[in-house]
Amino acid sequence: MKISSVPDLYVALVHYPVVNKKGETITSAVTNLDLHDIARASRTYGIRQFYVITPLEDQKELTQKILSHWISGSGAVYNHIRGNALEIVRIRDSIQIVLEEIREKRGRNAKTIVTSAKKNSRSIGFSDLKNKLKSGTPHILLFGTAWGLGAEIIEQADYILEPIMADSDYNHLSVRSAVSITLDRLIYEEPVSY
Amino acid sequence: MKISSVPDLYVALVHYPVVNKKGETITSAVTNLDLHDIARASRTYGIRQFYVITPLEDQKELTQKILSHWISGSGAVYNHIRGNALEIVRIRDSIQIVLEEIREKRGRNAKTIVTSAKKNSRSIGFSDLKNKLKSGTPHILLFGTAWGLGAEIIEQADYILEPIMADSDYNHLSVRSAVSITLDRLIYEEPVSY
Repeated sequence: MKISSVPDLYVALVHYPVVNKKGETITSAVTNLDLHDIARASRTYGIRQFYVITPLEDQKELTQKILSHWISGSGAVYNHIRGNALEIVRIRDSIQIVLEEIREKRGRNAKTIVTSAKKNSRSIGFSDLKNKLKSGTPHILLFGTAWGLGAEIIEQADYILEPIMADSDYNHLSVRSAVSITLDRLIYEEPVSY
Repeated sequence: MKISSVPDLYVALVHYPVVNKKGETITSAVTNLDLHDIARASRTYGIRQFYVITPLEDQKELTQKILSHWISGSGAVYNHIRGNALEIVRIRDSIQIVLEEIREKRGRNAKTIVTSAKKNSRSIGFSDLKNKLKSGTPHILLFGTAWGLGAEIIEQADYILEPIMADSDYNHLSVRSAVSITLDRLIYEEPVSY
């Protein structure tokens, strides 16, 4: 995949605001494997930055420790491939701060896209969104942890992406699987056969 | 997705024979999150059975404990959605035993497909394989843990699937991401728009 064909796309894994099983707004814990799996997928698909969003100081410290271990600590000696992916991770307090950061870097507002396992009247399809990404406008995919993104984040988003497997009788992918499949559908271009 | 359109497809996560960093043949440990993520993806895409392959008694016991916790233990009370996916998991000693089991069930041999992050002269494309799956013959996807499947498994396979992102300058997805993307490319059918 040539870098020139990669869209101006960011990924954020949101730990606040998300909902718990009862639908209450909570801050979820950062998990080690989310960092690794999503950084590796993001790096493979040419994502510009993978933002880990949490306002909790201890969670930010823990995340930074994991990153340092693999980027410059003994993990880097054991397996430098992990650090290479984790280098694109940035830890930030809120979605708002991330959006301001992208605006500063790219000189324009990023369009926000939320993903949901539930159908919504506003949902757009993957091929629609793939076309929008070709416009050159920066876009950011927001993925929720726990039982999903807070309702206010979904309402305020520019786009709501359709569920990955809307017609399956079971549609409960892990966030790691959901990110991987979403990036593949939005970015992968089948090779042209002659 | 209608069940009638789902191919006769199985998934196996192989813990032996796989190779370590040095290329030596080892038996890797079963990990909890592999079970959950791959079971949930397999269940979402209508996979007939997800085989966890390990010859080690303690690993088989540990895996069975995890399954029981979510299928009939306290995990089932907390979140029955997990058990619903884990019900399709079967723990088996070897690839050979799995192939015999499928032959017995389906009355014919399953074609074996290996996935690899490295290009191989025998590699076939995803759309090629997607067409083969439509023949009605049972197929099984073999995924390696650790540093990948043992060379003998790759050599003996009926098909070697091309790398997921052959042209990326970084192609080191987790096995959880690789399974998810592979199932999506092989099974998902874009809805027809009128």
